[in-house]
Amino acid sequence: MELVPNGTLITASPEEGRAPALNTARLVGRATRPDDDMRTRLRPEYAENPDSLVAVAHGVAVEFATVAAANDYWR
Amino acid sequence: MELVPNGTLITASPEEGRAPALNTARLVGRATRPDDDMRTRLRPEYAENPDSLVAVAHGVAVEFATVAAANDYWR
Amino acid sequence: MELVPNGTLITASPEEGRAPALNTARLVGRATRPDDDMRTRLRPEYAENPDSLVAVAHGVAVEFATVAAANDYWR
Amino acid sequence: MELVPNGTLITASPEEGRAPALNTARLVGRATRPDDDMRTRLRPEYAENPDSLVAVAHGVAVEFATVAAANDYWR
Amino acid sequence: MELVPNGTLITASPEEGRAPALNTARLVGRATRPDDDMRTRLRPEYAENPDSLVAVAHGVAVEFATVAAANDYWR
Amino acid sequence: MELVPNGTLITASPEEGRAPALNTARLVGRATRPDDDMRTRLRPEYAENPDSLVAVAHGVAVEFATVAAANDYWR
Repeated sequence: MELVPNGTLITASPEEGRAPALNTARLVGRATRPDDDMRTRLRPEYAENPDSLVAVAHGVAVEFATVAAANDYWR
Repeated sequence: MELVPNGTLITASPEEGRAPALNTARLVGRATRPDDDMRTRLRPEYAENPDSLVAVAHGVAVEFATVAAANDYWR
Repeated sequence: MELVPNGTLITASPEEGRAPALNTARLVGRATRPDDDMRTRLRPEYAENPDSLVAVAHGVAVEFATVAAANDYWR
Repeated sequence: MELVPNGTLITASPEEGRAPALNTARLVGRATRPDDDMRTRLRPEYAENPDSLVAVAHGVAVEFATVAAANDYWR
Repeated sequence: MELVPNGTLITASPEEGRAPALNTARLVGRATRPDDDMRTRLRPEYAENPDSLVAVAHGVAVEFATVAAANDYWR
Repeated sequence: MELVPNGTLITASPEEGRAPALNTARLVGRATRPDDDMRTRLRPEYAENPDSLVAVAHGVAVEFATVAAANDYWR
């Protein structure tokens, strides 16, 4: 499993930098989650919990901060 | 869907930098949320939970930190 | 509604920098909260929950980190 | 109420920098907490909740990061 | 127990930098967890809680930010 | 009570930098916790809650980020 999409933090634009941040958050979730079966069972409960989604957004914000710094904020 | 409003982190002022941070938080929420129907169902419960709102504010603060650094704090 | 008090992150002192951080946290809360009526209903429950207050303090700390960096830490 | 102890982020040592971080966390808590009466009622419940204490420690860590950067890490 | 894998934050690539961040999160968990027996008991409950997994991902994001900065973002 | 172990953030290696981060998190916990008696009562409940342990790991990650920056990442 690739933990950093394309193996680099450098992207052409903030838009592209946001996408890897989202992917990375998903990949970390997958790496720490035991099996596909459980993931399927978890999704409905999870998708209905707004607090979980806010927490995901927060984690993505932290990942994006790293990607943005890596790209010198695409200045 | 545009993940970074206007495709840039650079804004003319802190006020404008705060607005994209809010939008970005909303966009991430939307990207990870399955469908509009569920979003409508979730909103009342969510809007009444002050802890959710505090958590949103925290996520926005992290996004704003990135936007502020990108703009060299509008110094 | 002004999202960044006075439209700047630059303040004369850490004390003044803390105040905007508090205001900003309140403003973000207001921007994502639907109406004044609900806010009034929420306050008592919220004010009695120490965890909510700790979470607010944490969000303020993140905002203050940005304001402090913007002011080069008032060095 | 003083929001930043002594009105400065600069301290002589990390040890002294940690103390203001603790104080600041307490002051923010106080600034957002409505009255002394409620604070007294809240304390026992709060003091028995280890998660609250972990959350306080996390907020202090964020404050300390700012104070440490302000002091160029006392290098 | 080794708290920082290989005793260094420097890695050859973001992909390799992500791996230590994951390991470090696991090691901290282990260092604060009392015994193997309890860990075995905790795992099923934990693995089924998506919020726990989101929280782990967030902690990994913070660790990865440090590793990425240490490697000057593998620029 | 010493709030920063050895009164400095500078360490010889990342491994040593991780240890103070752990100690600091424990010290902050102790500083905000009222008495030893309560601490003993709290520990079993706390030690069985994986979310508490994840939260501790997250706080340690924030402390470690500060220690790592103070040491210029032991580069």
